[in-house]
Amino acid sequence: MTERIGYLGPAGTYTEQAALLYAPDARLAPYPTINAVGTAVADGELDAGVVPIENSLEGSVTFTLDLLIAQPGLSIRNEVVIPIDHYLVAPPGVSAAAVQVIYSHPQALAQCRAYLETRFPSALSEASLSTAAAVADMQASPVPAAAICPQRATELYDVQILARGIQDNTVNQTRFAVLAHADHPPTGHDRTSICFAFAVDRPGNLYHSIGEFARRNINLVKIESRPTKRELGRYIFLIDCQGHRAAPEVAAALDGLRQRVDMFKVLGSYPFWEPHES
Amino acid sequence: MTERIGYLGPAGTYTEQAALLYAPDARLAPYPTINAVGTAVADGELDAGVVPIENSLEGSVTFTLDLLIAQPGLSIRNEVVIPIDHYLVAPPGVSAAAVQVIYSHPQALAQCRAYLETRFPSALSEASLSTAAAVADMQASPVPAAAICPQRATELYDVQILARGIQDNTVNQTRFAVLAHADHPPTGHDRTSICFAFAVDRPGNLYHSIGEFARRNINLVKIESRPTKRELGRYIFLIDCQGHRAAPEVAAALDGLRQRVDMFKVLGSYPFWEPHES
Repeated sequence: MTERIGYLGPAGTYTEQAALLYAPDARLAPYPTINAVGTAVADGELDAGVVPIENSLEGSVTFTLDLLIAQPGLSIRNEVVIPIDHYLVAPPGVSAAAVQVIYSHPQALAQCRAYLETRFPSALSEASLSTAAAVADMQASPVPAAAICPQRATELYDVQILARGIQDNTVNQTRFAVLAHADHPPTGHDRTSICFAFAVDRPGNLYHSIGEFARRNINLVKIESRPTKRELGRYIFLIDCQGHRAAPEVAAALDGLRQRVDMFKVLGSYPFWEPHES
Repeated sequence: MTERIGYLGPAGTYTEQAALLYAPDARLAPYPTINAVGTAVADGELDAGVVPIENSLEGSVTFTLDLLIAQPGLSIRNEVVIPIDHYLVAPPGVSAAAVQVIYSHPQALAQCRAYLETRFPSALSEASLSTAAAVADMQASPVPAAAICPQRATELYDVQILARGIQDNTVNQTRFAVLAHADHPPTGHDRTSICFAFAVDRPGNLYHSIGEFARRNINLVKIESRPTKRELGRYIFLIDCQGHRAAPEVAAALDGLRQRVDMFKVLGSYPFWEPHES
């Protein structure tokens, strides 16, 4: 049966591009928010959902972290990493010289700031709700306009490409999480995401906790903290470590950690993303 | 001489409220972005600048963390914590029953979602660039509108207050950092913020680093990571610990840490915020 996969919409965004790369043959459906994707997966309306979790320039997507912490019945089953490659597009017939306004998501505008200042010093930057919505905003503009959008949007809309690769920093990648009811079986090149919290703040709490990994020579790939939303200065910690939770050393570290903390949740074990040859 | 203090504007926001609480007699000036405040302090145009650094529901303000990491000549000199207390306002003569649109910053709208759904089920929510800009958007609205804003905005604009304390979660506080050329002398109840990074990823890196604090019984108040912006999966760590950097135990821990890492910066030592009696 064809898998039903939701993603943070609308169509034409980088998240749709990630979903298509992950599951080209699935039935894809856009959802309006990260929470809506998570709820639809947890409720069984979807087999899986694709949401952004981290960008190499912006850092973590906190909505996704908070969803993983709070929503039962949700695991990370896979990750997908794609390069962020911004296209500059205009309606057919509008030349670059005529452009007076440039629409995009604020992050995309910020990531192309030097390019825009050099090439379009007198054009206004206007914020859109997504990189795909920017194309619609451009089409509705009363003055000659352009939009910054993903390659995928150039396939869906009637636009001409003025330029590509216009981002100032070339190291711009986004990691997406594929959320499902269960995580992934071991593959031999896996990562595990967990979260935990302490009821009482004591010196050395975190030190002794991550010692469970250090002592077993397990590399921590990432550590984050998120507010508990109950008191300023109290946190839930999120850790990504190397290895699958079913691997004996990782299982022992997780067991050791579980006994030191007051809240503990495995968010999932899943294979590292390896770029497709295409 | 009167201190010149900048803040993330416009006037009428929670940041202005924090700046007024911190320095009621200073010459205050709004700046358009967090980076603009930081640059003006580093350049000597301002004696200090007030920017948000953390909210109890949303977590860290990443623009401020990235500024502290990257901008030389900037230290945290103080912190200010204020409760976020959202007011619902309308133009004089507009009744709550007539309101069709409610403007605010997306975070403020999200923090009042349950209230709005119960009391204004058919009103549209519209995003504004700040809680103060929401009041201007409301005043310019062609249909009867309301805005969610701080108490400070109700003093600056001609509005009537329909309700106050409309946030769904009552534990909603924001911590602001006062940025200056130098940090604060010891007061006996201080905190120190630092950042550091490793050139090479090795198991136990972070564990041995924070061991410098644990072994000296120094409590870590907070740990965060931010992308290096050079490669997905490489991070700069930010830690807040108890005590002043001039205190012998803290100084020894910082020296120990410095020798274990490849990038190290003290962001400042400053007194804990203690609520004013007012």
